Amino acid sequence: MSSENLKLYESAGSPNSRRVRIFLAEKGISIARVTIDLGAKEQLSEAYSRINPRRVVPTLVLADGTAIGEVPAIFLYLEEIHPDSPLFGTSPKERALVTMWERRMELEGFAAVMETVRNAAAGLKGRAIAGTHDYEQIPALVERGRLRVTDFYADLEARLAELPFVAGNEFSAADITAIVAIDFAGKALNLPMPESHQASKRWYAAVAARPSMSA
Amino acid sequence: MSSENLKLYESAGSPNSRRVRIFLAEKGISIARVTIDLGAKEQLSEAYSRINPRRVVPTLVLADGTAIGEVPAIFLYLEEIHPDSPLFGTSPKERALVTMWERRMELEGFAAVMETVRNAAAGLKGRAIAGTHDYEQIPALVERGRLRVTDFYADLEARLAELPFVAGNEFSAADITAIVAIDFAGKALNLPMPESHQASKRWYAAVAARPSMSA
Repeated sequence: MSSENLKLYESAGSPNSRRVRIFLAEKGISIARVTIDLGAKEQLSEAYSRINPRRVVPTLVLADGTAIGEVPAIFLYLEEIHPDSPLFGTSPKERALVTMWERRMELEGFAAVMETVRNAAAGLKGRAIAGTHDYEQIPALVERGRLRVTDFYADLEARLAELPFVAGNEFSAADITAIVAIDFAGKALNLPMPESHQASKRWYAAVAARPSMSA
Repeated sequence: MSSENLKLYESAGSPNSRRVRIFLAEKGISIARVTIDLGAKEQLSEAYSRINPRRVVPTLVLADGTAIGEVPAIFLYLEEIHPDSPLFGTSPKERALVTMWERRMELEGFAAVMETVRNAAAGLKGRAIAGTHDYEQIPALVERGRLRVTDFYADLEARLAELPFVAGNEFSAADITAIVAIDFAGKALNLPMPESHQASKRWYAAVAARPSMSA
């Protein structure tokens, strides 16, 4: 299905952009994309700041020019206008539970990975927090961040030993955020999911096999 | 209106609990409350961990025992089952925009205040991050946190110079998260909103006058 009146500003290497690309692919929605060149710091430009004052990708722009930033807000909008192939369940209770689990995957997994990367990468000196303002890196956050990611892997293993997917019996937005965090931890921090985590490995194989994952 | 089949586990001094109490009061919903004694570290108990494995308040428990943690998930659920007096607008676009602004208030305001408090308070040694795991405090985060809160105040002033409320022309969940963050910054960090911020002062007076704010 093509939603030609929607436009996504995004970047190939951005994990937050990947969360939205996978979400769209799961829904079977094709929309226009505008590449923001993070290598050239295009996200910090005046032009892009007018679209997203936090100067982060991705941003979803509607036909009337309304700009929606923040991945959970983009997920919510896309889920409402394209309810088929639900990624937040099908009832208020399920939506709340997926929202809760997606957020836990973000706070304890995704955000831990990103904080570690941003405080370690030479290219992000002075940009330790994504957003409007510039902050210096804090080396102690790198060490703590690696510990947090390890703790996240342990919690995820305990969860997936009980249920097939993060939020329960069905694949959901929570699985998207979790796998994007894990893939980025492996790539950017050389901190892959432990081989010994059997339940997580079973889950990872099932999720990674979905066609949406190459989006 | 009484929703007797809902139960909120919360604490009087917890800013996250206050976000939900205000939300409920704005909706005119009265529900059962169970006090978790943070001073006695009751949130870390085995019994409470079974309700909320992240060991944080608040948690909303439904009639069937389903436990919903994380304030945005609780907001979403309450908004869906009690759509009157909308706090997330009335269309998919408005819901996405309020979700975006509520999250910005959280990431740049609320979370900055909480990070500063948790890394500074003597009583939170070894508990620098709310949640499942124990992490040591990092003194550099206190200094950075105060700077982040100051930057948040500046951004909020710019926003409120353009619009009456954080997410636009109507009071919303984004205003709740913003004012709870500001009140806690004044109380716990002695870092009140600057007197010179005229637009923020106008907004604060309007929001603080709502009966829900004493909840």
